Amino acid sequence: MRYTDNFNPTISDENLFEEIVKEKEYIGYYNLVHQDTSIFKEYAATVKQKNVVVIGIGGSTLGTYAIYKFLKHSKTLTKKLHFLETTDPIDIKSKLENIDLQDTLFVVISKSGTTIETVSVFKYLHSLTTIDSTNAVVITEFDSKLNTYAEKNNIRRFEIPKDVGGRFSVFSAVGLLPLAIVGIDIDELLKGTKEVHDSFFSKGLESSAEYNYNAYERILKKARFFTEHKQKFNINVVFSYSSRLEGFNKWYIQLWGESLGKMDINNTRQGLTPIGIIGPIDQHSFLQLIVEGTRDKTVTVITIDDFYNDLTIPSVGLEGLEELDYIDGLEFSKLINMQADATIESINNLKDIPCDVMSIDSISERSIARLMYEYELLTSVCAKFMYINAYDQPGVEAGKIILKEKFKK
Amino acid sequence: MRYTDNFNPTISDENLFEEIVKEKEYIGYYNLVHQDTSIFKEYAATVKQKNVVVIGIGGSTLGTYAIYKFLKHSKTLTKKLHFLETTDPIDIKSKLENIDLQDTLFVVISKSGTTIETVSVFKYLHSLTTIDSTNAVVITEFDSKLNTYAEKNNIRRFEIPKDVGGRFSVFSAVGLLPLAIVGIDIDELLKGTKEVHDSFFSKGLESSAEYNYNAYERILKKARFFTEHKQKFNINVVFSYSSRLEGFNKWYIQLWGESLGKMDINNTRQGLTPIGIIGPIDQHSFLQLIVEGTRDKTVTVITIDDFYNDLTIPSVGLEGLEELDYIDGLEFSKLINMQADATIESINNLKDIPCDVMSIDSISERSIARLMYEYELLTSVCAKFMYINAYDQPGVEAGKIILKEKFKK
Repeated sequence: MRYTDNFNPTISDENLFEEIVKEKEYIGYYNLVHQDTSIFKEYAATVKQKNVVVIGIGGSTLGTYAIYKFLKHSKTLTKKLHFLETTDPIDIKSKLENIDLQDTLFVVISKSGTTIETVSVFKYLHSLTTIDSTNAVVITEFDSKLNTYAEKNNIRRFEIPKDVGGRFSVFSAVGLLPLAIVGIDIDELLKGTKEVHDSFFSKGLESSAEYNYNAYERILKKARFFTEHKQKFNINVVFSYSSRLEGFNKWYIQLWGESLGKMDINNTRQGLTPIGIIGPIDQHSFLQLIVEGTRDKTVTVITIDDFYNDLTIPSVGLEGLEELDYIDGLEFSKLINMQADATIESINNLKDIPCDVMSIDSISERSIARLMYEYELLTSVCAKFMYINAYDQPGVEAGKIILKEKFKK
Repeated sequence: MRYTDNFNPTISDENLFEEIVKEKEYIGYYNLVHQDTSIFKEYAATVKQKNVVVIGIGGSTLGTYAIYKFLKHSKTLTKKLHFLETTDPIDIKSKLENIDLQDTLFVVISKSGTTIETVSVFKYLHSLTTIDSTNAVVITEFDSKLNTYAEKNNIRRFEIPKDVGGRFSVFSAVGLLPLAIVGIDIDELLKGTKEVHDSFFSKGLESSAEYNYNAYERILKKARFFTEHKQKFNINVVFSYSSRLEGFNKWYIQLWGESLGKMDINNTRQGLTPIGIIGPIDQHSFLQLIVEGTRDKTVTVITIDDFYNDLTIPSVGLEGLEELDYIDGLEFSKLINMQADATIESINNLKDIPCDVMSIDSISERSIARLMYEYELLTSVCAKFMYINAYDQPGVEAGKIILKEKFKK
């Protein structure tokens, strides 16, 4: 018998790890954990304006929004952060109504430098106020057209490294600069990423007792499970039990969808579909589908151990509603976590829905950064298992070309 | 040869229509189009408070939020509407910070009357302000415990009919009362639903020229396609090209997921998974997965013909960015629709992604109501094709029982 095949090779955890270590030499996001943050902090210290408006879309805003949304009510922040992302005219107008543009710093972010949404909104802002080196800053690649614009107008520039993709850029200037400006501790963010980085790249040898097991093992196991069962479980639900994680969910959707929806090396379409839902709200919306519907979903539940908040249900007797008096005196943070536990238990009782639970310590820079960096690593590892390139997005180019043609007409 | 089978029967469009007509006798939402709205308008006229806070979750808020979010910046509304939906303590606290509770009407909505999230938040509000017949109103079933509470406290009650399910209740008191109070024209809403109702139940005979074809044909064709191909295309994406439709997307996710994720009459799990994304933002997030990923998704694009908004990109020469000068002078509403068209064209060019386009006329009560009522009908028809009950949600009961047991301990 002669035999040949064109199967994708199968890959051991060991070989995969070596591939990731190789990739680390030319994919930039892995190494952002080692950055010197002083240029961001120095610039942040000079900003006088009360409002910071980020003009950007996709990878230029989602990660920053995720961190800001997570932390903003738990920290005393000195400034307000706003995002102008879309070409929807009513959205632009209604957002601007609540911002004093005379007391605003504009942060224009575009990796390519010619993102149509970003440039059109930036142009529009010129019709409302003067924009110059005193109230604008630009974050882009060093050789982009937006960089040229900034240079010509003497506007301060920060660089997005070429080897850091947009959706992996939150821990570069893209996220760190605006977050530092509003008063978030970016060193604590990087500390969180570095803990996960070190645990992963040392294969867990340096992991602390806080991990119930090390990031390397956890990520490898999860990525292997998700990709081996990708035909049956083509949907990966993240069920976050706090509205504070709504931005994280959106960031996850981009990271996962845009990185893993690709042709593989055999020209076979791949794609794991991300869904982000919020508990307990979506117990009243999406949970029924998870529990009784087709078995095509994995579920990752994310909970927060400590909300640092003692909001409590008072002992108020409501005549007629006495049957619910058992919740009296309970802290809301306790209630939401009991609801999460009940959901997890009901899913696990079914025994045929893959489910994992990530409990993060608290609402802090370090814990959100750890969660996000771990998801970046998980995405890279899944892509390796699937023999795809996590870092490009060729599928969205066709629409851009068609749009340009429409303009020519 | 003897022969038996236990296949689900196949069903003709004709028989299916007859089933829906039969169902209309005991499923209430179909007939909400014929309501007398005067009790809502009369009550609304008496409300003096500037803020309206809805306390509810899932079907008690999502539809109302969808309509409010769609219209709020395009109408001159007299009051502000807020939603307290979750047990997340930070969310509750941060939302209440911006509301003057002394100038607030509380609308407590729970179909069952004992929803734990709703009652716990309502109890919490009692610790902040006095709640009585002057500043509260209750919407619930006529025999619920919340109804008893309202009766004992002389608080005005409005009824959710027993035969109207929560996620199908937006055009009952649940949505109409709070929307009327803030100044939305609820008769125009019902007019929109009635147009779709009449077109569907007359099989298109009364349809107006505005429909490119009638609601009956459109809904039957779409439901048949979605359910016949449910194994291959287990995900139904709604891609809405306006941030105004963000609430609609969320409402759609509940309606679709919770209605269609069920055991069928043969005890086989069914489930079509809803995803809601927003253009052009999610061109930079989810589109890559649609275009290059596994072919497991249908795509419904929703666009708005007329935004009634003339926000325009000014002719501002930005040195360095001249290559984008072709957008100068363009209205944003034109740009967003050109972006939608380019996306649709790029999807259709691929020829293997099922895609339909719903273009609604404008940002008006009538058009959002038509869209929502059509989606309700579509959901009912899909459920018939799949031999499931669209109107129950047995899968979420297990979690509730586990939660109660946790309290007993």
